[in-house]
Amino acid sequence: MSTKNLNIVILAAGKGTRMQSLMPKVLHRLAGKTLLQHVIDKAKQLIPNKVVVVYGYGGDAVPKALTHETITWVEQKEQLGTGHAVLQAVPHLDDDGKTLILLGDVPLLDQKSCLALLDKTDTLGLLTVNKQNPTGYGRIVRDAQNQILAIVEHRDATKEQRDITEVNTGIIAVSNTQLKAWLSKLSNKNAQAEYYLTDIVAMAVNDGLNVAAEITDDESSVEGVNSKEDLAGLERVYQTRNASALMQAGATLADPLRIDVRGELTVGKDVEIDVGCVFEGFVSLGDQVKIGPYCVIKDASIGKGTHIAAFTHIDQAKVAADCKLGPYARLRPGAEIADAAHIGNFVEVKNSQVGVGSKVNHLSYVGDATIGKNVNVGAGTITCNYDGVNKYRTVIEDNVFIGSDTQLVAPVVIGEGATIAAGSTITKNAPAGQLTFCRAKDQKSIASWKRPVKK
Amino acid sequence: MSTKNLNIVILAAGKGTRMQSLMPKVLHRLAGKTLLQHVIDKAKQLIPNKVVVVYGYGGDAVPKALTHETITWVEQKEQLGTGHAVLQAVPHLDDDGKTLILLGDVPLLDQKSCLALLDKTDTLGLLTVNKQNPTGYGRIVRDAQNQILAIVEHRDATKEQRDITEVNTGIIAVSNTQLKAWLSKLSNKNAQAEYYLTDIVAMAVNDGLNVAAEITDDESSVEGVNSKEDLAGLERVYQTRNASALMQAGATLADPLRIDVRGELTVGKDVEIDVGCVFEGFVSLGDQVKIGPYCVIKDASIGKGTHIAAFTHIDQAKVAADCKLGPYARLRPGAEIADAAHIGNFVEVKNSQVGVGSKVNHLSYVGDATIGKNVNVGAGTITCNYDGVNKYRTVIEDNVFIGSDTQLVAPVVIGEGATIAAGSTITKNAPAGQLTFCRAKDQKSIASWKRPVKK
Amino acid sequence: MSTKNLNIVILAAGKGTRMQSLMPKVLHRLAGKTLLQHVIDKAKQLIPNKVVVVYGYGGDAVPKALTHETITWVEQKEQLGTGHAVLQAVPHLDDDGKTLILLGDVPLLDQKSCLALLDKTDTLGLLTVNKQNPTGYGRIVRDAQNQILAIVEHRDATKEQRDITEVNTGIIAVSNTQLKAWLSKLSNKNAQAEYYLTDIVAMAVNDGLNVAAEITDDESSVEGVNSKEDLAGLERVYQTRNASALMQAGATLADPLRIDVRGELTVGKDVEIDVGCVFEGFVSLGDQVKIGPYCVIKDASIGKGTHIAAFTHIDQAKVAADCKLGPYARLRPGAEIADAAHIGNFVEVKNSQVGVGSKVNHLSYVGDATIGKNVNVGAGTITCNYDGVNKYRTVIEDNVFIGSDTQLVAPVVIGEGATIAAGSTITKNAPAGQLTFCRAKDQKSIASWKRPVKK
Repeated sequence: MSTKNLNIVILAAGKGTRMQSLMPKVLHRLAGKTLLQHVIDKAKQLIPNKVVVVYGYGGDAVPKALTHETITWVEQKEQLGTGHAVLQAVPHLDDDGKTLILLGDVPLLDQKSCLALLDKTDTLGLLTVNKQNPTGYGRIVRDAQNQILAIVEHRDATKEQRDITEVNTGIIAVSNTQLKAWLSKLSNKNAQAEYYLTDIVAMAVNDGLNVAAEITDDESSVEGVNSKEDLAGLERVYQTRNASALMQAGATLADPLRIDVRGELTVGKDVEIDVGCVFEGFVSLGDQVKIGPYCVIKDASIGKGTHIAAFTHIDQAKVAADCKLGPYARLRPGAEIADAAHIGNFVEVKNSQVGVGSKVNHLSYVGDATIGKNVNVGAGTITCNYDGVNKYRTVIEDNVFIGSDTQLVAPVVIGEGATIAAGSTITKNAPAGQLTFCRAKDQKSIASWKRPVKK
Repeated sequence: MSTKNLNIVILAAGKGTRMQSLMPKVLHRLAGKTLLQHVIDKAKQLIPNKVVVVYGYGGDAVPKALTHETITWVEQKEQLGTGHAVLQAVPHLDDDGKTLILLGDVPLLDQKSCLALLDKTDTLGLLTVNKQNPTGYGRIVRDAQNQILAIVEHRDATKEQRDITEVNTGIIAVSNTQLKAWLSKLSNKNAQAEYYLTDIVAMAVNDGLNVAAEITDDESSVEGVNSKEDLAGLERVYQTRNASALMQAGATLADPLRIDVRGELTVGKDVEIDVGCVFEGFVSLGDQVKIGPYCVIKDASIGKGTHIAAFTHIDQAKVAADCKLGPYARLRPGAEIADAAHIGNFVEVKNSQVGVGSKVNHLSYVGDATIGKNVNVGAGTITCNYDGVNKYRTVIEDNVFIGSDTQLVAPVVIGEGATIAAGSTITKNAPAGQLTFCRAKDQKSIASWKRPVKK
Repeated sequence: MSTKNLNIVILAAGKGTRMQSLMPKVLHRLAGKTLLQHVIDKAKQLIPNKVVVVYGYGGDAVPKALTHETITWVEQKEQLGTGHAVLQAVPHLDDDGKTLILLGDVPLLDQKSCLALLDKTDTLGLLTVNKQNPTGYGRIVRDAQNQILAIVEHRDATKEQRDITEVNTGIIAVSNTQLKAWLSKLSNKNAQAEYYLTDIVAMAVNDGLNVAAEITDDESSVEGVNSKEDLAGLERVYQTRNASALMQAGATLADPLRIDVRGELTVGKDVEIDVGCVFEGFVSLGDQVKIGPYCVIKDASIGKGTHIAAFTHIDQAKVAADCKLGPYARLRPGAEIADAAHIGNFVEVKNSQVGVGSKVNHLSYVGDATIGKNVNVGAGTITCNYDGVNKYRTVIEDNVFIGSDTQLVAPVVIGEGATIAAGSTITKNAPAGQLTFCRAKDQKSIASWKRPVKK
């Protein structure tokens, strides 16, 4: 297995001046995940002995953003070229085996190409790409036997060499012993006074060693992010591929160019997703779930047969089967909606359970509440869960009917089967089965009333 | 006229395995309408004597989904190939005349091509297409005189035949007498042990009969749906064409790639539609109507000069002229908004009439209400129309002023010119012209009050 | 400097029949601005002595729509051709110097091309374009020395001439003395009986004068709007270019194809804009501002570090630093949100100040209010600012806690540190530091209560 005794070095020290950002380049996000995290995730799938990340610009910002990763961090204090960057990692590399050198700003890396590259060589191998427009890239120059002779930078290339479409990606597989030997001989005697990792290709050729290459045609998989336009371009590649995968899994997408998934979206059978939806984190949609246009759903599970109408916003919530949500429903963290419940328009639910078959259909705020089964919560109902410093729970038992525009001042319990009259401010527990109200007794009219006049 | 004595057979028996769905393929929807309905609608425009649909996978699901259609349903109990499918329809075909064989999964069929095909032959004619990439399709092989010799499947094609870009679409016109004769001789002695309808081409050639062809260049018009990606692709073709038609009719579209019409949208002069709007069912927009971004409008008529702001959601409602709706207005079934009325943000209107010049501008629920002219409904007003089992109407006569946060407990009538004080719970009729209120009398303050402290 | 003694004539008299509109063509909007305004704005950047606009169809509609412009308006009462149109402007042109003739329906004009054109000639120069598909356009016919001989209309062109891809754009630079001389000789003896401005090219060639040309490859920059499809096409070109400029300025756009800017959007460092946002008028976003999906923002400034969640709608408002808005927040004209304030879901703020660190998080209407620092406004709070004819202000001083579902009947002052109990209707000033309430005293329950039964 090629990945035996594999070390991986990820170069992540660059500033990315053209990003026009205060943030190191590799911390910018693609599909909700930092560029570096994309590369680390893919590196780990190759099951290396160790992963070394060389960071630099922005100092601790990069390691601090990825403290959850058990990798080796190496600082490159001055950015003196790619060769210099790899040199910082050398003390951490194994004595034998191979090192795969990846780039922290190439997020759509294809592991299959990496595996193929590792398989192809025990000394030095390059991942190369056929680019439709190779302008600006280092060309792979080969001899008549198709053996790699050199990487020639665009500015140094002859007219004929510029016609070469195979270019260097910067991704390299190399034996650790050779890498250490070559790096020790690297020089910075060039126009930029930098140590170039690619100079080891010339060393290998000089040494009479064969330089292998794995050629890919998937340009996106080796494309680096150097500007916000690059980032947006790769984001679209990622999203388009993800949309295709969803459709192949059976999801019906109204428009594959108008869905954004930043995380993992799993879909059951016959799921339908309308235009413009955004998914973040881990979201699972059960069989026959329908999502209307322009819904934003993050870290949520939606049960079988549930229909979600337009403009619904869900964050860290669980919705069971056969529910109806929206339009304009908002579920905040801790909302748990049981089977066949309805959450309607302009309703906010936070840190609350809504029981089987219960309905909160209009203009309500349900926070820190436990609502039983078959409860009807009228329009304009508000759980007053906050006294300015503390939060309290409201409990509404099964089969309760809450009249419209009721305030439930927590802590308070509404007993099973109770009815609360519209417009009540409920500050004490309401007994089960009874009608409870708290509002002015008498409706009065003033016959002599004169409408205000324009001042 | 070519459509005289025309029979149409629509093949709709396939499962569509790659759709990854529990639902028969032809019941998937494009632009809100099942694939089969698209084909039936187009078939009927050819004014045939009869339409026979051959269904199979999913059993009754297909006929049950189209019970409103007066067509002949024929079940193909086993799916033994296209020839076998047509054979099921034969008992229902006329003795003479022609049959046009259509495919239930080809929704963007072009009737003009069908008419041209029918015109071209009295024996057998094929609708063919020039495909930019013919890989996988049956090639149309012609002789030196350009006469059709055979349909050669991709796997059986020679290298030269694979260069042919004219391919079979599966859509066929054939005389009924010939069809019956040929089908009776069809064999399933082939690798798949299926009866192939296309074998009749060889029979015709054997019989020395000329096989006609109508060639189309519009690939979408003959493209079948075999996967969710195909479905999404044709959906986009449909929507793009529809957007062009709207613009040619004079509509100003902010972005033709971001409008979805699933049904029929008719537009007056100088209509403007902003990005991301979704229209379903029958929607008509009068002259000078402006629709803001991200509105969802279904089965509605919108009168001249009405402006609808962002995020408005309308379903089965009528809006007259010069109204202002939204942003975030929701009209539910039975909402009827008269001239120059305003429905504002976070307002839901259901099964209610709102009179000329009346305003419901903020955070209200208006259900089962009749509102007269020049009424002002204050913020947070709620019609309490539901007692848990029954619904009642609220009547608000002309020139009424409803103070904010009022509950109107139906059945109740607010008389002409009445004023309701803010925060009232109105349970009895309010007399015309008077101020009516129902709330606590005295505002009190407790000087010794201590704020709650953090627990 | 080429723009010395420069006159500019803009032809804006056409109806634009294919626009299918009652409005003159040049008044249609691209990126929120009329086509003619685009051309005038670009014309003025060339610093001409004067700008003459020739209007016609729609009569006064065109000048009335641009009364803020100090330009010379000339009416072309009958549309007798482009030469006739320019003739109307002649009395207003300087005796010497040059005139640049622009087209009111070519909004993406490139000033650099105009400057280059003006530099190239002192007699007659044409702005020409290499079109990928020149069908329908007047070809630029040149002699062996590459000198322009004629503009040959498509219908008159030979087969060889039709292969010419350089075509006339209609944009011309000409010396004023020559222009006046040539126009006086113009004839309408042709099939359409119109006076063609392009006939002056033949006159120049006849006079033995060199006709210069500035050739552009940017087709969009010379494309005229003749239909709603043209308009939508150029809108997308404009928006795509604008999105690129934003990214080059450092903005992170989730999808450059799904952002619409109609006006001027300025961005600080590390601004992130999610999919589907629409910006109108003048909008500035400070450093680290994040805008969620589907926000609509017009004429607003958003301070550093403020996060705006999905579906937020802002019009003529100021938001300071580190605020949190939305989802579904609506700021209307005159809303001013101070540092670290929160405006939450289903909340409308109009003509109000919200102080530092204050929160209005749920389902509220805040209109004509002044809210101090560290105020908590509970869910369902409504400022009753309108008595049907007059509007009044609500003042909420620092550190106030407003309980849920409170109505504040303006004019009213809530004193510093006051607490208002949930469900109160506050009609009188509330003293500082005290608890104020106004609601029914006693909560009652009726044990004998029977639920309504289905009628």
